[in-house]
Amino acid sequence: MSTETIDIASLVTEMAHQARAASLTLANVPREQKNKAILRLAELIEENVPALQAENAKDLEAGEANGLTPAMLNRLKLNEKRISGMVEGARQVAALPDPVGESLETYQHPQDFSIEKVRVPIGVIGIIYESRPNVTVDCAILCLKSGNASILRGGKEAFYTNTALAALVSQALEEAGLPPKAVQFIPTTDRAALNTLLKLNEQIQCIIPRGGEGLIRFVSENSTIPVIKHYDGICTVFVDKEADTAMAESIVVNAKTQYPSVCNAAENLLIHRDVLDFHLPQIARGLAAKDVLIKADSEAAAALEAAGIDCEPATEEDWGTEYLDLVISVKVVADADEAMAFINKYGSSHSDAIITSNPETAESFLNGVDSSTVYWNVSTRFTDGFEFGLGAEIGISTDRLHARGPMGLRELCSYKYKVVGNGQIKG
Amino acid sequence: MSTETIDIASLVTEMAHQARAASLTLANVPREQKNKAILRLAELIEENVPALQAENAKDLEAGEANGLTPAMLNRLKLNEKRISGMVEGARQVAALPDPVGESLETYQHPQDFSIEKVRVPIGVIGIIYESRPNVTVDCAILCLKSGNASILRGGKEAFYTNTALAALVSQALEEAGLPPKAVQFIPTTDRAALNTLLKLNEQIQCIIPRGGEGLIRFVSENSTIPVIKHYDGICTVFVDKEADTAMAESIVVNAKTQYPSVCNAAENLLIHRDVLDFHLPQIARGLAAKDVLIKADSEAAAALEAAGIDCEPATEEDWGTEYLDLVISVKVVADADEAMAFINKYGSSHSDAIITSNPETAESFLNGVDSSTVYWNVSTRFTDGFEFGLGAEIGISTDRLHARGPMGLRELCSYKYKVVGNGQIKG
Repeated sequence: MSTETIDIASLVTEMAHQARAASLTLANVPREQKNKAILRLAELIEENVPALQAENAKDLEAGEANGLTPAMLNRLKLNEKRISGMVEGARQVAALPDPVGESLETYQHPQDFSIEKVRVPIGVIGIIYESRPNVTVDCAILCLKSGNASILRGGKEAFYTNTALAALVSQALEEAGLPPKAVQFIPTTDRAALNTLLKLNEQIQCIIPRGGEGLIRFVSENSTIPVIKHYDGICTVFVDKEADTAMAESIVVNAKTQYPSVCNAAENLLIHRDVLDFHLPQIARGLAAKDVLIKADSEAAAALEAAGIDCEPATEEDWGTEYLDLVISVKVVADADEAMAFINKYGSSHSDAIITSNPETAESFLNGVDSSTVYWNVSTRFTDGFEFGLGAEIGISTDRLHARGPMGLRELCSYKYKVVGNGQIKG
Repeated sequence: MSTETIDIASLVTEMAHQARAASLTLANVPREQKNKAILRLAELIEENVPALQAENAKDLEAGEANGLTPAMLNRLKLNEKRISGMVEGARQVAALPDPVGESLETYQHPQDFSIEKVRVPIGVIGIIYESRPNVTVDCAILCLKSGNASILRGGKEAFYTNTALAALVSQALEEAGLPPKAVQFIPTTDRAALNTLLKLNEQIQCIIPRGGEGLIRFVSENSTIPVIKHYDGICTVFVDKEADTAMAESIVVNAKTQYPSVCNAAENLLIHRDVLDFHLPQIARGLAAKDVLIKADSEAAAALEAAGIDCEPATEEDWGTEYLDLVISVKVVADADEAMAFINKYGSSHSDAIITSNPETAESFLNGVDSSTVYWNVSTRFTDGFEFGLGAEIGISTDRLHARGPMGLRELCSYKYKVVGNGQIKG
């Protein structure tokens, strides 16, 4: 190990110890104080727009020099809209109810003492993310509101912007009288920092990676701390034989095209063999009108060709591909059972929909599809913390443990048992 | 890799695929069918006592030949009491409410469709445990009742007994018309099986290690599947200055001596400096009467010496040691804040108690101690699924995510969202 690597390891270890100490304080501070820090951060961002944009310009310049794609540069850019989004997001989170301290259940033991299950913060959360700098503020605020200390590790592309935002977070904490180490930003993007961080399971209780598959895989393979993964969304819409054509078209087009680059957009369309010629041409024309490229299996391709609609052949690989683009794969299935088996095999257990007027088929699909959110006659695009009434979300978990689907403030909490008696002992 | 290693890897991979398929069926079978299998297993165990004990005798013989300690041989032994314990446990679990399908919350979206959060099984759970063969039956039953497929990997010491029990589980599943691969027992204790198992994160959703620290550490360092750890219990009782002496003595003696080899037994006693001479001699005499060895810091040692009570010096290492024996460490603290800091530093976030008549001090302790269960004037020995009204438990989680403290049937579940509408799309 080089001296620098050792220094980074010491730095990150020290940060984790400070975070653990801050988390013990933060777990019990009054909600007003947490809200004060969040609202002050919103003000500080508003007061520092030119300075933030100046730092952001450095990142953009470096990004251009390093050959980032226009899409990557766009994600990196802190424009007026994104700044006001951060500010508004902060004010919304301040207005949300505090999840900490909520009584979840009470049990009276036969020996006449009470056992109360109470919501508490998880402790210290490490968040590892990539280029979008607004994630720094969103994560800091959600962790703070839920009483968790956080250690943030952003991507190298947004380093100047993140550093400037992190300084404002520290200032807001200090002005609200909260431990300044309650939110810490790792001041290096050296991989050595990540290697150290992911092993500090005595100090850090949870790791949330947000970003591409490579990052998430690296984190989950190298962490000895529990990880909540936010993997990709390979979402499917199944049009059953008893579907309404207009509804099927409307939902498929919405699920595919309303915002194609997000995880709850549809990537696969399954269509019941009995209604292939009846439904597919209309749905395909709706998609084509939005410039969607259709990749079809041979049976669907024949139906499309007969209707004079262009398509490309789909391969096995397509069924498990997250396009995040105006592309959809189409496959013909014999029935709902085949549709469910397809989704459980190729999907990512994220969001899947059935279009049908048959309640029995729908019920079987809602139960049989092993995904965090299953839709009946509704677009997959609604999988989102705000839409589900959870408020702001830190992401959409594709894991089954702790949090599944949209992960809001309550999902950033654990619980503890408080037991109160007057001398009870076990006999 | 040797041919044998490759064969074991293929075998375990095939088992995981079969478990995944079985889990999709098991998630939606009627509760009567699951209960039927569990009750049939209870009968089968009763009908096969001599055969089970004959297999167990092989393990005991091998264990003696391999130099297992008397304590280890005792844990391994399937005596009448343990067999009737398994049978009774199975009948109790069959009688518990089914957690699967329970509606947890409903949200009506402004666009007039419903979002229902429903409890569902996790999927496939891998359980890795050591010598006690009754764990095979306990885990199989708890996973089955909660709709999860399970893959069980027991220790080599109990291999014959486990194999015989696993055969009865398979028979019970088959007779109840359930997928026979819903519970599978890995038929080898080769480490290669574990190395394969822990990487099959597409098929297995959760790993629960039960056993010594070495096993748990190996599992959590090598698994790419989320792990719920059941680590040790370093539990502390703090006697505040406003404690009732008789209550303090009674609780400390109970927490230390009622069952010293379990994780919720006390290992440390903290005593407020102001009441040291007043309380410690009586508590120490109570402990000495139960043959407890006292290891004391210098201040406590002086007080004990003045009262004519024997002790040994405690070292820094003692504060973080799980004795699981009739030994306790005693330390003097200045106040509740120092007690809390001690517990948060040296404890294992398991179960800790305060003895005080002051509600403010107690409230501060209940909030400030970062453990899954915090007691006020109650013995730590109550941390247990049955005592908490959860029914049977698969263990006591020392993690903060998903399950914290006693882990029963509900904690063996995840949830999903079912969304029902009539054509809603996102605008």
